[in-house]
Amino acid sequence: MAYLERVNSPADLKKLDISELKKYAEEVREYIVKVVGKNGGHLASNLGAVDLTVAMHYVFDCPRDKFIFDVGHQSYTHKIITGRRDAFAGLRTDGGISGFENMSESGYDAFTTGHSSTSLSAGLGIARARDLAGEKFDVVAVIGDGAFTGGMTYEALNDIGASQTRMLIILNDNAMSISRNVGAISSYFKKLRLSRRYKVLKTKFKRGIDGIPLLGPALVRFTERAKNAVKKQVIPARMFEQLGIRYYGAFDGHDIGELVYILEQIKNVSAPVLLHVVTRKGNGFYEAEHDPVKYHGVTGEKENILKFSDVAGETLVRLGENDERIVCASAAMIPSTGLSAFRERFPKRCYDVGIAEQHAVTMCAGLAASGYKPYLAVYSTFLQRGFDQILHDVGINGLPVRFLIDRAGAVGADGVTHQGLFDLGYLSAVPGMCVMAPRCGNELRKMIEWSAGYSQGPVAIRYPKGYAESAETETADIEYGKWEELSRSDNGVCIIAVGPNMIELARGIDCRLINARFVKPLDTDMLRSVAGNGNLVVTLEENVVRGGFGESVLDRLNVIGAECEVVNLGFEDKFCDARTVSAAFAGSGLTAERLRGIVSRFLSSKQK
Amino acid sequence: MAYLERVNSPADLKKLDISELKKYAEEVREYIVKVVGKNGGHLASNLGAVDLTVAMHYVFDCPRDKFIFDVGHQSYTHKIITGRRDAFAGLRTDGGISGFENMSESGYDAFTTGHSSTSLSAGLGIARARDLAGEKFDVVAVIGDGAFTGGMTYEALNDIGASQTRMLIILNDNAMSISRNVGAISSYFKKLRLSRRYKVLKTKFKRGIDGIPLLGPALVRFTERAKNAVKKQVIPARMFEQLGIRYYGAFDGHDIGELVYILEQIKNVSAPVLLHVVTRKGNGFYEAEHDPVKYHGVTGEKENILKFSDVAGETLVRLGENDERIVCASAAMIPSTGLSAFRERFPKRCYDVGIAEQHAVTMCAGLAASGYKPYLAVYSTFLQRGFDQILHDVGINGLPVRFLIDRAGAVGADGVTHQGLFDLGYLSAVPGMCVMAPRCGNELRKMIEWSAGYSQGPVAIRYPKGYAESAETETADIEYGKWEELSRSDNGVCIIAVGPNMIELARGIDCRLINARFVKPLDTDMLRSVAGNGNLVVTLEENVVRGGFGESVLDRLNVIGAECEVVNLGFEDKFCDARTVSAAFAGSGLTAERLRGIVSRFLSSKQK
Repeated sequence: MAYLERVNSPADLKKLDISELKKYAEEVREYIVKVVGKNGGHLASNLGAVDLTVAMHYVFDCPRDKFIFDVGHQSYTHKIITGRRDAFAGLRTDGGISGFENMSESGYDAFTTGHSSTSLSAGLGIARARDLAGEKFDVVAVIGDGAFTGGMTYEALNDIGASQTRMLIILNDNAMSISRNVGAISSYFKKLRLSRRYKVLKTKFKRGIDGIPLLGPALVRFTERAKNAVKKQVIPARMFEQLGIRYYGAFDGHDIGELVYILEQIKNVSAPVLLHVVTRKGNGFYEAEHDPVKYHGVTGEKENILKFSDVAGETLVRLGENDERIVCASAAMIPSTGLSAFRERFPKRCYDVGIAEQHAVTMCAGLAASGYKPYLAVYSTFLQRGFDQILHDVGINGLPVRFLIDRAGAVGADGVTHQGLFDLGYLSAVPGMCVMAPRCGNELRKMIEWSAGYSQGPVAIRYPKGYAESAETETADIEYGKWEELSRSDNGVCIIAVGPNMIELARGIDCRLINARFVKPLDTDMLRSVAGNGNLVVTLEENVVRGGFGESVLDRLNVIGAECEVVNLGFEDKFCDARTVSAAFAGSGLTAERLRGIVSRFLSSKQK
Repeated sequence: MAYLERVNSPADLKKLDISELKKYAEEVREYIVKVVGKNGGHLASNLGAVDLTVAMHYVFDCPRDKFIFDVGHQSYTHKIITGRRDAFAGLRTDGGISGFENMSESGYDAFTTGHSSTSLSAGLGIARARDLAGEKFDVVAVIGDGAFTGGMTYEALNDIGASQTRMLIILNDNAMSISRNVGAISSYFKKLRLSRRYKVLKTKFKRGIDGIPLLGPALVRFTERAKNAVKKQVIPARMFEQLGIRYYGAFDGHDIGELVYILEQIKNVSAPVLLHVVTRKGNGFYEAEHDPVKYHGVTGEKENILKFSDVAGETLVRLGENDERIVCASAAMIPSTGLSAFRERFPKRCYDVGIAEQHAVTMCAGLAASGYKPYLAVYSTFLQRGFDQILHDVGINGLPVRFLIDRAGAVGADGVTHQGLFDLGYLSAVPGMCVMAPRCGNELRKMIEWSAGYSQGPVAIRYPKGYAESAETETADIEYGKWEELSRSDNGVCIIAVGPNMIELARGIDCRLINARFVKPLDTDMLRSVAGNGNLVVTLEENVVRGGFGESVLDRLNVIGAECEVVNLGFEDKFCDARTVSAAFAGSGLTAERLRGIVSRFLSSKQK
């Protein structure tokens, strides 16, 4: 690791020559494989981006020049180069560095990323600020092909192309979005990649450049000749050109020499430029390269224990056998939401729409309006992007779209940008929305079965990332708006909990324990039964308290004139960057210890 | 109005010949001008779409074939043709017909629209359901050029192009989105429109068709020849073709004969097709055609009384003079949010990004991250589309983006799809977000001035559509998190109201009246002062109660151990399709009468 240890900043990197850069990149790859093998994370996409990132830091001057990595899951090399090599060992751990680009972590991170397709918008804002201030630095957005299925990218391209603001967009085309390639844009990129003209030119280009000593400054005198060479390589990529964005590509994203050369040439173009580079996910690591879906994120998962996602997938396949109106959709998340088996069994009834939650929601609304039973499986944090569509297209029309909301609650290592801590609020605010949360795999099964027969309006079923270990637990049949009583007590303490983790917190406490399987509508009858003077009602939810379940319970208790004491526990009104579920809970005081303290204080004050 | 009265359904329309269709269209235009002149509504865009809609109903068989009008503001002719001619006189009134396409209003309306860029997604869902069911009908989405600045359109195109599902997309290119043309896509459409090849071909085409008796069935025998004619007219519109969507255009959107002809030819294509027609907003009505912005929506507004939008615009211009870091952005709503003067004065510091709220929010985050002070002016209902970006890009980074949220609360004639009744909830759920609501124009001024100096995080200022009549009212200076006491009383009644309309409800009632200028953070000190046993606290908000202001007040009172009685008034947990603000209030029991009743019941029970 001779080179790895020498580079503590982009300035150190600039001291190397191209052949040394290549060795450095090899060492970075090894280091990433080692850390991700231990901590989990996005292996394949980071291995694919090592060479590109090294070339970027060699040519540009970060942090003066601003790098925005779309999604940010491929920013590990950037972190290692920019003073975080040793800290990288603590990747995705509590107190350690984030798995995404993060402004609060380093001044080298120009913007915080995590969700897809934001980089061009943020980059344009930064570029506009630069122009207003009369400054000159470069803004570089690195964006994968998958992020081009997100509509926000086009909203930004439309604005960038019209404004002609100087900005470099690097399309990191790794020929694979999170699951498999979806959508027309991916076929279009493929066409660009496979263009014969590009291949021929590329070969010539490489021959011409191999002998040149590629120290940065030395390149300047070649600029004019090189510019012409670059121009000749332009493939008529009408889609971008028609939007006012110059297209250069496609280039080999693993040839550092070529990348350095081309970046030097286009860095001074005072207009928006799209540079198309082709990379291989997992480059340099055989297993990752050959099974990029598996290695997109490495998580070190347990074997033989069903996750909620698996239960959802299995249940849908079973229901789908007997009801051909059951269809599934996902936004580039078919495998991770458990839908792979459904897609295999019913390929024509399963839609992967790309990283396009807005479209996914409204497309499902169209299916539901036509009498079909769409199940849209999506992570809680990503469904935020479909909020308007849930309200405007599904909600107003009362259409029975079924939302399977995975990774709800605390998500662990992905941290602040991926926490699913808001869905109970934004979904419950939608009139007519039925919001449910199972406490175990078996209950999730029953909820999905129940929802297949519920046609009065939309249904959201939210569950955490974890294991549905109690998949075989006995659980009462689902009845609309009715909660499940898990234990009784006559000490006046009632705990109303949402989801498996919260119920777990209350286990072993002498209380009336209620499983709030319906977050909306509330079970008013059961609330009346706990509302008596001298009782304590504690609500527990894996969601922010503001706008969440507890507030609605308090409101209902207030309306029915309850005289009990009420305590609402949930996540505090702050962003949570914990990297483990337990640290997330601890950070908001969601511990069994605190809960026991609240109960015993109540009981002892009652005795007085 | 000989023809207008003869057509009660699409079947009646099909009995006319082309020359009669033209006369019918003239009468429809007259009728629209008359009704909109009285009721308000979208005049110019509807006049522009009359001929196209007549041709669509002549060729297709609605409701078997499904028409989805994007936004739906141009669907008046469709309503008049489909059995709602007489009902159209009640356009946009309470109990009358909606200004948008609405499933619950008529079986002829295939989907409910209101917000932009949803039609392709909904249409694809309907088309997929059709294919699964083995049916054969056509799905036709009519979408304006403005809606092509919304990213959701591209998410859908990506999916449509890849799936090759049969679907007709009619690009109604009226060369003007809601304000003026913005973005690169609009330049692209212009290029397509102005193509000389199109013009020449069109002339030839028209000559060829003029003599043909254009009764529907008679056309069938011309099909083969015509198909070739159509093919020859294809302009190489690479952007769509590259996404797998066949492009035909551009055609004259006011030549009914030509439109009928071309629609007949392409109705049987079993793949996605984009038909580009060029229309003139306001066609046939001189004033509307020559001032399409003014006549986009006709509202019959009062003169000489400032609206909140005007106050916002004026204040920003004034602040902008002394602080060049103040910049403004809007999503195709510059004039209607009051920013025209700012754009005129500081053209380089004002960004109209198109109908692209997601991009607008994150672009502003980029500006804020660079030390600028962005003000994003947007309607409450449309900001829903930026929810994820508010949370993920602005919120997590604590960036001081200032949101000026116009048309918050009940919006009147636009009805259910445009109500701004959710923002207090979804904004307050975002950690670190400061949410304010002025009670008058003067307070809005002070809030905007205050927000220019507040850099700790994002600020949202929300105000209704109405007039800021009390612009000159004395109002206390803004202090972070502090409410304003408007009147005192020692009868134990406290009313805490958000915004001018709610404060108005409480006027004249003997109570302690508090202006909750900060919806978040709450003024806990003031809450403590009203929390005493035997007091009544009533919250009033122009928002749904679920997740709104009142619930957070109740939660805070509960946490501080208040013993007062609390009543939360606001909009009920149902969608509100009222077409006047007063009907909206009455429908949710937000009346002075009810409020007085609550207060007097409390006072008399207290006396007992």
